[in-house]
Amino acid sequence: MMDATTAEFLKYAAEIREEVNEQLATYATFGDGCPERLEAAIRHSLMAPCKRLRPLLVLSAAETCGSTRRTAMPAACAIEMVHTYSLVHDDLPAMDDDDLRRGLPSCHAAFDEATAILAGDALLTRAFEIIARDQKPTSTAIQCVTELARAAGSCGMVGGQADDLAAEFQAGDVEFLTSIHRRKTGAMLTCCLRLGAISAGGTSAQIESLTTYGGKLGLAFQIVDDLLDITGAEAQIGKKTNQDTEHGKLTFPSILGIEESRQRAEKLIEEAIASLNSFGSRASNLEALAHYVLNRNH
Amino acid sequence: MMDATTAEFLKYAAEIREEVNEQLATYATFGDGCPERLEAAIRHSLMAPCKRLRPLLVLSAAETCGSTRRTAMPAACAIEMVHTYSLVHDDLPAMDDDDLRRGLPSCHAAFDEATAILAGDALLTRAFEIIARDQKPTSTAIQCVTELARAAGSCGMVGGQADDLAAEFQAGDVEFLTSIHRRKTGAMLTCCLRLGAISAGGTSAQIESLTTYGGKLGLAFQIVDDLLDITGAEAQIGKKTNQDTEHGKLTFPSILGIEESRQRAEKLIEEAIASLNSFGSRASNLEALAHYVLNRNH
Repeated sequence: MMDATTAEFLKYAAEIREEVNEQLATYATFGDGCPERLEAAIRHSLMAPCKRLRPLLVLSAAETCGSTRRTAMPAACAIEMVHTYSLVHDDLPAMDDDDLRRGLPSCHAAFDEATAILAGDALLTRAFEIIARDQKPTSTAIQCVTELARAAGSCGMVGGQADDLAAEFQAGDVEFLTSIHRRKTGAMLTCCLRLGAISAGGTSAQIESLTTYGGKLGLAFQIVDDLLDITGAEAQIGKKTNQDTEHGKLTFPSILGIEESRQRAEKLIEEAIASLNSFGSRASNLEALAHYVLNRNH
Repeated sequence: MMDATTAEFLKYAAEIREEVNEQLATYATFGDGCPERLEAAIRHSLMAPCKRLRPLLVLSAAETCGSTRRTAMPAACAIEMVHTYSLVHDDLPAMDDDDLRRGLPSCHAAFDEATAILAGDALLTRAFEIIARDQKPTSTAIQCVTELARAAGSCGMVGGQADDLAAEFQAGDVEFLTSIHRRKTGAMLTCCLRLGAISAGGTSAQIESLTTYGGKLGLAFQIVDDLLDITGAEAQIGKKTNQDTEHGKLTFPSILGIEESRQRAEKLIEEAIASLNSFGSRASNLEALAHYVLNRNH
């Protein structure tokens, strides 16, 4: 049974998703300057139905700091573009070799490898253009570009993807796996919270609290992802399941077992919510989101 | 025989190359945060011996507008990173499938495909980080990020690469080929000039003149590149020759013939130099560079 808080949160998330989709559709319209097939590939991956978790984090963080969603919309869309590019490249045959993504054929499967490589490149490039052009004021835009580039770069997301490839068929403990995921998904999720707070003109203390929240949420998210890969149904999560096991990948359940992984995720979510204390009731959506991340089944 | 102007220009270019290489080596040092193999792949491609034409354009443009090289160094290095990433991805088996680059094994040949994809992604991301962090003042940095993203994106370089793939084994006239190269190499070369001028705080008229120079130089550069692919020796140009013909690619010589292509390049270089009139003697390096682009044999 769904409680009232969850229902309200889901309504809020759906509203944001619609706003974000509308803005992304505009941002992914290039007109005459862009080859048709390239634009089609970009839109195929960017506009595929999905949760828009990262924009939701950005926009909720901005609201939690007392600003509006509109203020942080360019940053929110930019992060979704960076996330999408990473999926497009991650799915390539030379990487995870995944034909299914967001319930649709992945980019290289729907188009071809070369087009998928270029579509990913274009999305990453567009993300920085959007922030530089539309995020206001200029000083905020520069801070957002710097933070996003750092989180997405070789010491962040891309570094985590490289780690991840190297870690296949390799032994490792929880600390090692945590360090991979801090880079691979953690850096970007934390970046969402920070960009939302920065766009909103939040104080250092607010940015700090949201960073803590983001780090814990990110790790919990990854543990739940690993669990869903074992227990989820393919149709529900929109990509093939049991891929990690098949590929011999190091995951939290493979080291800790299902039960302890679950407990660890729960503890992280508790701590994430505790870090929002100073925001009072303004943080209710981020609290609900943390519960949602823990309890999602896709 | 080399004349005095050419000798002086080559000395100037060598000096700049050394400064740029030093700064790039610093920018491509990530420390503990970056997986070793990823950093090695990034450095393999970025630090391979090459002309550093693009930084040379950025820094010369800044000097032509009356500023210093130091002022425009972050933008110059960022553009070289973007250029290098495009080569790394362009060389991939799914794209041009090239095992040799800048006289060394290309990135995926020296490492592996997945690492090459990620190294390219990391270089592109790092470029924007560098500008946002180091290019001063903030208003200039934002303008540089916007211009670079536009030139490198789906209506610029990436769009041109997509065009280029589609144009293999396809008929087309000079206008069609020109439009491809305006995107593929022209947008980035023009961007070099613009970023140099913008970093230097150049006037609109100065930026405009350098944009004209860049457009004409870029197209001449491409025509010479096509000619070198036919006539150049593999050892001299550091990559396989006659690749275009083997791949059935549309080139200027394949449409116009060698002689008319050569004449067209000469005329463009004349026009490029004419557009520098208003700068007087301050433009002497850009003039010499235009002659060099026309007469290079590698």
